[in-house]
Amino acid sequence: MNLDEKVYSELVQLVSEHKRELFDEIAAQRTDYINVVIENLYKEHNASAVLRTCDCYGIKKLHVIENENQYKVNRDIALGAGKWVDVETHTLGKPPALECIKTLKQRGYKIIATTPHTDEFDIYNLPVDEPMAFFFGTEFSGLSDEVLEQCDMRVKVPMYGFTESFNISVSAAILLSALRKRLNDSSFIWKLSEEDQITLKTEWCIKNLSRGKEIESEIRRRLIEKEL
Amino acid sequence: MNLDEKVYSELVQLVSEHKRELFDEIAAQRTDYINVVIENLYKEHNASAVLRTCDCYGIKKLHVIENENQYKVNRDIALGAGKWVDVETHTLGKPPALECIKTLKQRGYKIIATTPHTDEFDIYNLPVDEPMAFFFGTEFSGLSDEVLEQCDMRVKVPMYGFTESFNISVSAAILLSALRKRLNDSSFIWKLSEEDQITLKTEWCIKNLSRGKEIESEIRRRLIEKEL
Repeated sequence: MNLDEKVYSELVQLVSEHKRELFDEIAAQRTDYINVVIENLYKEHNASAVLRTCDCYGIKKLHVIENENQYKVNRDIALGAGKWVDVETHTLGKPPALECIKTLKQRGYKIIATTPHTDEFDIYNLPVDEPMAFFFGTEFSGLSDEVLEQCDMRVKVPMYGFTESFNISVSAAILLSALRKRLNDSSFIWKLSEEDQITLKTEWCIKNLSRGKEIESEIRRRLIEKEL
Repeated sequence: MNLDEKVYSELVQLVSEHKRELFDEIAAQRTDYINVVIENLYKEHNASAVLRTCDCYGIKKLHVIENENQYKVNRDIALGAGKWVDVETHTLGKPPALECIKTLKQRGYKIIATTPHTDEFDIYNLPVDEPMAFFFGTEFSGLSDEVLEQCDMRVKVPMYGFTESFNISVSAAILLSALRKRLNDSSFIWKLSEEDQITLKTEWCIKNLSRGKEIESEIRRRLIEKEL
């Protein structure tokens, strides 16, 4: 065991066995291969519902671009999902969307705009051979021009009725459901490494314990001293 | 052309060309092979969102079982979807759920309970060789015991996170998305017949025209007289 594993194995003793099993099971299903990005949502309600959808589909990270609207988790709707999904906010840059795109490209993600107005790709034929960041826009005006211009690909969720759009959390759920199924059936390496799972589970322990961060630091300090 | 076709071809002259094309396109994608049934929802909001989801996935008919809650379309949320999806309410019988199940079985549908608490089938391995009626329950207590006991099959939407349930309209969207894709890839006959499409488009014309029903009756009477 390396140091991180040792720290985790001590720390996890402090949470319930039920939680421990849950952490193992869920971390093994978490992915950073898909990131979800929401741009400038008008309704707090929807942002929180997207957060919940991300958790349900094992998405490790949600990015929030804040041009005008202050994002705030609505705890009732997110049902605590905000605790388990990493939220990275992007407020710098003019506009912040461009900085967010730049950051994600540097990290190796393909930038994918979700929009009903494209015939480029749908959720079933979109290439999934590289990490993907899916951008979702506001319900009324969609994604900003910056995102639509700078994206690598555009994808739509097929619809067959009179209603021209799904609610954003519904769109995200349908898209993530299909993509996850496709990744599951593929041979791509899209789940977290063992090492990343340990890091994630350590964070979850810290969040789950009162004074979690202090306890973790203490364990780590003691283990380092012991090794010296 | 038979009488119904003649009636429709006259009636449709009275709606805009845009609507006419839309009716053709959407009717060709409508299905009665899948029915959606909602039981006893607590929140009007959710029932309307399910209605919208049904329209988006080309579901011709939504059944509403009313044990305790009065269902009422929330027009803001359904965005007019109530106009295009047939809603059949079930209020008779003790409980009405049993009468609804009986009716649907007589019409040749498999009764399928959607529940997170099953390992019987998921949306990817559920048999789709016969018409299906999917029952969705309340957000808090799920489906009634009657439905869980009388159903032919149970199906779940796979989830991978801490959150234990999706909002019902999200569940319905994920399920319908996957099932529709599977039917699309299959050789089963699951779309409406030409005849049923004409009937449906005639209903849509009637709903879309003021005095639509009267106009349709007049056209029909005139055409019958002409044939005699």
